[in-house]
Amino acid sequence: MNKIPVGVLGASGYAGRELCALVLRHPRMSLAFATANEQRGTTSRIAGRDIGLVAPEDAALGDVELVFSALPHGASKEWIARAQQAGARGVDLSADLRPGNGCEGIAYGLTELNRQGIGNAGVVANPGCYPTSILLALAPLVQQGLIPDGAVVVANSASGVTGAGNSPKREMLFAEVTEDFRAYGVGNDHRHLNEMRSTLESWGANADLVFTPHLLPVARGILSTIAVPLTRPLDDVLDPWRSTYAAEPFVEIAAAPPSLRDVIHRNVVRISAAQLSGTRTPMLLVTSAIDNLLKGAAGQAVQNANLMLGLDETAGLPV
Amino acid sequence: MNKIPVGVLGASGYAGRELCALVLRHPRMSLAFATANEQRGTTSRIAGRDIGLVAPEDAALGDVELVFSALPHGASKEWIARAQQAGARGVDLSADLRPGNGCEGIAYGLTELNRQGIGNAGVVANPGCYPTSILLALAPLVQQGLIPDGAVVVANSASGVTGAGNSPKREMLFAEVTEDFRAYGVGNDHRHLNEMRSTLESWGANADLVFTPHLLPVARGILSTIAVPLTRPLDDVLDPWRSTYAAEPFVEIAAAPPSLRDVIHRNVVRISAAQLSGTRTPMLLVTSAIDNLLKGAAGQAVQNANLMLGLDETAGLPV
Amino acid sequence: MNKIPVGVLGASGYAGRELCALVLRHPRMSLAFATANEQRGTTSRIAGRDIGLVAPEDAALGDVELVFSALPHGASKEWIARAQQAGARGVDLSADLRPGNGCEGIAYGLTELNRQGIGNAGVVANPGCYPTSILLALAPLVQQGLIPDGAVVVANSASGVTGAGNSPKREMLFAEVTEDFRAYGVGNDHRHLNEMRSTLESWGANADLVFTPHLLPVARGILSTIAVPLTRPLDDVLDPWRSTYAAEPFVEIAAAPPSLRDVIHRNVVRISAAQLSGTRTPMLLVTSAIDNLLKGAAGQAVQNANLMLGLDETAGLPV
Amino acid sequence: MNKIPVGVLGASGYAGRELCALVLRHPRMSLAFATANEQRGTTSRIAGRDIGLVAPEDAALGDVELVFSALPHGASKEWIARAQQAGARGVDLSADLRPGNGCEGIAYGLTELNRQGIGNAGVVANPGCYPTSILLALAPLVQQGLIPDGAVVVANSASGVTGAGNSPKREMLFAEVTEDFRAYGVGNDHRHLNEMRSTLESWGANADLVFTPHLLPVARGILSTIAVPLTRPLDDVLDPWRSTYAAEPFVEIAAAPPSLRDVIHRNVVRISAAQLSGTRTPMLLVTSAIDNLLKGAAGQAVQNANLMLGLDETAGLPV
Repeated sequence: MNKIPVGVLGASGYAGRELCALVLRHPRMSLAFATANEQRGTTSRIAGRDIGLVAPEDAALGDVELVFSALPHGASKEWIARAQQAGARGVDLSADLRPGNGCEGIAYGLTELNRQGIGNAGVVANPGCYPTSILLALAPLVQQGLIPDGAVVVANSASGVTGAGNSPKREMLFAEVTEDFRAYGVGNDHRHLNEMRSTLESWGANADLVFTPHLLPVARGILSTIAVPLTRPLDDVLDPWRSTYAAEPFVEIAAAPPSLRDVIHRNVVRISAAQLSGTRTPMLLVTSAIDNLLKGAAGQAVQNANLMLGLDETAGLPV
Repeated sequence: MNKIPVGVLGASGYAGRELCALVLRHPRMSLAFATANEQRGTTSRIAGRDIGLVAPEDAALGDVELVFSALPHGASKEWIARAQQAGARGVDLSADLRPGNGCEGIAYGLTELNRQGIGNAGVVANPGCYPTSILLALAPLVQQGLIPDGAVVVANSASGVTGAGNSPKREMLFAEVTEDFRAYGVGNDHRHLNEMRSTLESWGANADLVFTPHLLPVARGILSTIAVPLTRPLDDVLDPWRSTYAAEPFVEIAAAPPSLRDVIHRNVVRISAAQLSGTRTPMLLVTSAIDNLLKGAAGQAVQNANLMLGLDETAGLPV
Repeated sequence: MNKIPVGVLGASGYAGRELCALVLRHPRMSLAFATANEQRGTTSRIAGRDIGLVAPEDAALGDVELVFSALPHGASKEWIARAQQAGARGVDLSADLRPGNGCEGIAYGLTELNRQGIGNAGVVANPGCYPTSILLALAPLVQQGLIPDGAVVVANSASGVTGAGNSPKREMLFAEVTEDFRAYGVGNDHRHLNEMRSTLESWGANADLVFTPHLLPVARGILSTIAVPLTRPLDDVLDPWRSTYAAEPFVEIAAAPPSLRDVIHRNVVRISAAQLSGTRTPMLLVTSAIDNLLKGAAGQAVQNANLMLGLDETAGLPV
Repeated sequence: MNKIPVGVLGASGYAGRELCALVLRHPRMSLAFATANEQRGTTSRIAGRDIGLVAPEDAALGDVELVFSALPHGASKEWIARAQQAGARGVDLSADLRPGNGCEGIAYGLTELNRQGIGNAGVVANPGCYPTSILLALAPLVQQGLIPDGAVVVANSASGVTGAGNSPKREMLFAEVTEDFRAYGVGNDHRHLNEMRSTLESWGANADLVFTPHLLPVARGILSTIAVPLTRPLDDVLDPWRSTYAAEPFVEIAAAPPSLRDVIHRNVVRISAAQLSGTRTPMLLVTSAIDNLLKGAAGQAVQNANLMLGLDETAGLPV
């Protein structure tokens, strides 16, 4: 079968490398180019092959059907536009085109919840890693009207360090991260918060979201722990997810809270929930785990690209 | 100066060892005995000395002024009673005598908030590690009437593995914990939850507490991240803690969220807070970090013992 | 294509689980049974499937063509014999039947160096993890007569904790291993040393081997660093390995010293070498890395089983 | 008692920070200045105090009795000379003045073995971290003539990442180091090798040294594993060290191989040895552990400074 040529912009970061690896192993895609600004002219060992890295200016945008951009926030938007002008479709992994960041009207690539919009889109804004883990967990409760008006939903997330990229920063050195744990961006992580609040609003939710990210001494993975007030207690605490995500290949509903190792190196979200006792309002404690580089970035990007290109949605994705 | 003889029951676990180390380095205490059931008859290397471990039955309870018990929950209560009968006072690090666990009327050893009760007590129930980090952070807000009636306070805590003790369990093996993170006891950690709810109630708080502990791939430390609705926005977000804990030697108020390495190997709690934006009700995000084996266990126990024995409260404690 | 039924004895340990996972994903094998003594009657989640664990006594040894045994040293030998009596062939991952351990005449499963003996064998002794990394690195030098008579070869190996199995032991708890590193079994690790000395001797080597294992704070992987005196300096330092292992699918020769992450989750050995300067005798510094659970255990076992069953040697093995 | 003013050049790196912390806690030294080129004008939180960092040009070299330099290799030499011109004595933690690096005649600060030379020196070259762990372990064998002429001594060392400094480098990011282990500088680490070979030669040793450093996924600590041929078997394997280091406050001789956690945060070297069996030549396996930032850098520097300033050698040093 012929393979469809695609390109990767920003192939030197963690998400970009993961994208290249997925494309290289994909049964229906071929990697036409991989760009890296600083490392232009070098080769990178990915998935057992030596991949040449070219300057973005030298990428043959017109020769591919689809471009993935893992460029930094701010720089990505322009290159997605260039790719479009060259006739390619685009999946943007940066925050540039996501909802709540000043650029509405772009298809939002939370795959399980927006297949129609994604399939026909010229450009898809791939969701942030934190929003993926939280929004997929909250959607069934919103859709089924289970969250009271004016409720406060409190989401705590903890992420492995690959979420911060591989630019050398002192605070990300091994000696600084090992045996440590901390919250960051407290009250200020507007990028992810805006994306989530805007999306929840678009779903008709009328709740307040509190979100605090934390940095874990692990390489990969995000765990979100979400306290949600309910309009009524649930007889079957997992029913909202089971009924919403029946037959979804990349969503796992679990009786026990997921751990990072349940999801690492897999393009899945794993969700659990438990009813809390001793609160006046009925409340759920929802936990949700993803691999930040797969379902939280490159995996979901390929899932969206599969839809856009008319391929089997699961093609090339590790479950 | 004469040293006061004290004993440690349960010296083979992490908290028991830490207690022995603190006593051995204490300027005014001497270690009269250290017990360990399974390891009776062996010696243990602690603080550069070889400490002989005896069976609890062989401990000369009557020869000491104070007994620390780091025995397991359930077993501790009886030995504290025996120590009292032998004329010693006691600090119980187990959950047996803590509030909310069916045994009220015992002095609760949250030192900064109960000095009078502790100083004269025959027995002090040393607080749990999670409750120490959360209650010290919430107390100023409760005392100043800043938490609305019926509010839901959501506390997420993450702890290093020494919190689970050093009994060999498969799920605590290095290979099982490294690169992982998970919530546990979701909705079921009644021991710590009861202790906190009962204490908050005793302070007159009329709020619901939601609490979820997590297991971190680090040896030591607890970080608690607490979302708190407020009756009104604060002009100076750190004022409640500054005014409550002015001049406290073991409480640090910080502008930035604390990380575990700020508090490891120190008998302090480090607290920060930030006002959240975009919520209908004004809300605070409070973060609080302790070393689970020091301020969360052995350090606070020595702090309490110092008070009970009329010593300088800071004697022998690392800041 | 019909799948060949095989069984796994000892499926609850790390190597046994890895074996089950490889068999479950193998294109030509099916998993007829998986045994676990203590966990009999439970199911284990492996490779996305729930695998029932039966008592070894209930394993239908006669219904399979081949049995893998990942039973503990000492217990394995008997079950391999039982499997043979029932008409099955066997691959023994324990040390029971390895050379140097009192039980000669069994085919030694260092695949790349003994294909003929393995293919026809009724039972194959799968090599130890340390010997695999060291012997595959030394073989080309021995075969080409490059190690002087009476030379001392010094091998230092460092292993991840899965090499110690998943029985709960205090010294393997996360809190005991993190941020630590130590040598163990110094001068006493006779099991692995005997296996290596006996094998080197059988190859005609007349050198002394010094071997020291170390415990790393990582889950998987072994790195061996080997100082080898040479009969003469080499013009092309990698030539011995290139010429010996040309076209081997599971051997990688690298210009730079391998790191664990080069080989983790892959059934390969990766070898490098550098000439040392400033020594009277010419010397090489050889480094060799494997995944202890794959090329060092379950992967090599499947590689051997592929040969025994007339399958493609690479079938079902991750490269 | 009056405190002696000292200064620290290069206070922003790991060793420089550790130096500042030791000086701040030292009973007889006061910290007159701490320099940091890039961070000039900022303050750094060290040992519970806010320390102002000044540009090296603004350091009052003439106002101190002794200057510690933790400046980078190459840059340090000049500043030590400037300090001398200003009338201060110096302890240089860089490699600039160490033996074997083109600058002989400077007192070598391997404290236990060169007290006389150090005490009167204007400038002391503080040993490298690897050489400290290896040379202190080998000295007794050399001094007692136990290493045969022409013998090959093979030393493998593994170091925590603080040994590589805190300049942001991609390969030192947490995500790159966790779960990994590798040799580096194979055959090329001439700086440390020259220092060791030159020192061994100055002691009259006529042996070849092979040295391979490795990078560990831990923050602190060095473990060296050294295989040494002997002229004769030893009746008491630890006797050479016991007799050489009797009453040394910072040398521990242990029956079991040391682990990193035995020495972390302590200014000690811990040494063990075992006779190897099955080799034609009698051989010892020596293991030696230090904290790379204390006995391997800042601790030994203060130990040397104590000697130079006529203070108690143990003053201000954690054992």
